[in-house]
Amino acid sequence: MAVKSLDDLFHETLKDIYYVEKKLVRSIPKLAKHASSPELKDALESHLRETEMHVDRLEQVFNIIDRRPSAKKCEAYEGLAKEADEVIEEIDDPEVCDAAIAASAQTIEHYEMSRYGTLATWAKELNMQDAAELLETTLQEEKAADQKLSALAEQHVNHRAAA
Amino acid sequence: MAVKSLDDLFHETLKDIYYVEKKLVRSIPKLAKHASSPELKDALESHLRETEMHVDRLEQVFNIIDRRPSAKKCEAYEGLAKEADEVIEEIDDPEVCDAAIAASAQTIEHYEMSRYGTLATWAKELNMQDAAELLETTLQEEKAADQKLSALAEQHVNHRAAA
Repeated sequence: MAVKSLDDLFHETLKDIYYVEKKLVRSIPKLAKHASSPELKDALESHLRETEMHVDRLEQVFNIIDRRPSAKKCEAYEGLAKEADEVIEEIDDPEVCDAAIAASAQTIEHYEMSRYGTLATWAKELNMQDAAELLETTLQEEKAADQKLSALAEQHVNHRAAA
Repeated sequence: MAVKSLDDLFHETLKDIYYVEKKLVRSIPKLAKHASSPELKDALESHLRETEMHVDRLEQVFNIIDRRPSAKKCEAYEGLAKEADEVIEEIDDPEVCDAAIAASAQTIEHYEMSRYGTLATWAKELNMQDAAELLETTLQEEKAADQKLSALAEQHVNHRAAA
């Protein structure tokens, strides 16, 4: 990491979240495949389509800062993904597994919300209004995805898991 | 992980966040020590005192479910902490480092917000109102700490980093 300025930090953090989104395009289908609740499966699959757009928006931001899109291994995501994998592998009861999958997906959403919030604020500070708007759009979609998972957990998933 | 019911999942997730809070009691002072902005240092130190209360509240929840407080290694936290450590070690400019420290602290706050939100909802589903209230109280403090860091970043830290 050769970070000497806020521009450098912005670029490094952009590579971090780009890694996360690219990984998610492959790992959300795995979570969806293991979900037994049709509502949870639908929510994950519709978030996959959004995630593909998030990758595209990040590439637009790389373009704005005149850099080639590149990913940097994100240790935080690796830890979050490892926890999600454990859930899938080690919980046999499908309803309890659904509650755990929804919770794991929310930890990942929260990581993304935090990163997009930070990046949008830094973009504004660096007078990159177009980049800030792209990042803010994705931030709002991550928040909405998190709220959808909360509602789903409260209305369906947790109740079945507790039955 | 021997998770067969929502009760088991609640207990496992409680051990996960207990690990995080206990680790934070030791790692927040390290972040505060490396912060150069007095406002950021203050915010981290005041969150340390809250974190000590969070540990205490979790011990009360273990007591409610008749379990001995115990921690389980949280892979997600390990990843988040590794990212925070990299920032401290690899950014020399103190103002840019402050912006990165505030952002890293927010990724950890977001992990906690996600876990406390989930645990409070599960506690309600399992008819443990007292546990739900303890978890909800900490959730509100984590949200407030995150908002304080956002405000601090926007008002002081990022501006100095961009100068």
